[in-house]
Amino acid sequence: MKATGLHLLVEYHDCDRKILNDLPHIERLMTSAAEAAEATVLGVMFHPFSPQGLSGVVVIEESHLSIHTWPEHGYAAVDFFTCGKCNPERAHEVLAAGLKASRFEKMLLRRGNLPRSPMIEVLNHDEAIPRESTHHLLHVAGVAPAERQDPPKLRACSTRR
Amino acid sequence: MKATGLHLLVEYHDCDRKILNDLPHIERLMTSAAEAAEATVLGVMFHPFSPQGLSGVVVIEESHLSIHTWPEHGYAAVDFFTCGKCNPERAHEVLAAGLKASRFEKMLLRRGNLPRSPMIEVLNHDEAIPRESTHHLLHVAGVAPAERQDPPKLRACSTRR
Repeated sequence: MKATGLHLLVEYHDCDRKILNDLPHIERLMTSAAEAAEATVLGVMFHPFSPQGLSGVVVIEESHLSIHTWPEHGYAAVDFFTCGKCNPERAHEVLAAGLKASRFEKMLLRRGNLPRSPMIEVLNHDEAIPRESTHHLLHVAGVAPAERQDPPKLRACSTRR
Repeated sequence: MKATGLHLLVEYHDCDRKILNDLPHIERLMTSAAEAAEATVLGVMFHPFSPQGLSGVVVIEESHLSIHTWPEHGYAAVDFFTCGKCNPERAHEVLAAGLKASRFEKMLLRRGNLPRSPMIEVLNHDEAIPRESTHHLLHVAGVAPAERQDPPKLRACSTRR
């Protein structure tokens, strides 16, 4: 199996501070982002901090998504590490809309560029204002609480895509 | 609290293929790596793939460590994302020795460089052969099975360092 992966790192800035501290909401958002990228969710782990902020990871068949939030700065650091046919850009669009980020900065890396050197390669690095149109993705990805489906929390051996 | 973090991305190449497929061993190694970096482990999640390979995440008070292995290529992609006073370089030394990597490539990023732009900054990017001397770290970090301590798997609210 090919080991090549795309690793999208995003810094979300000027986000909705209340959302950044809402653990169940962020957990749903991250799971929806994984699904939007056409990833298969294997498990999630989220942790709240005191007095604010949270960390969370979604392990997917195609690698992982992670988030760390600092509500006091309106800031979140997110990683979308995907292999196979997943599209991390779709996951980012869901997050940008869901966090109500006023701006973000993205760096796209290629990982596991075997057997060449460098194995890590910066493909792109830019800063932007989210498109208004991405907000509809929240509905498409089913983030609304009424549509919530809890992700699997059990361990099971699966085939990597 | 400051949001600045150090994100160390490492590609381990020509590793011991049996170790890359040994989930309990990798889980101990990653926990030991976190402890070597002086991070506080909050929880772990590891997942085996069929016919081989695994993914794993260690959530720490100071962000996270992740690993994805491809035993068929002797390759592992690892991320050490740390905030506060943790030293991701120490975690890397434990991994390089534990995976028996013949070579590795590292990229060190600064994250959350608020409010400046760019928020993500490449501080260093190099490729190297592990130092023989790092092998002693396995003992120091307590990776030997007899010394194993299971990491906490419960969720609890803690103070971010």
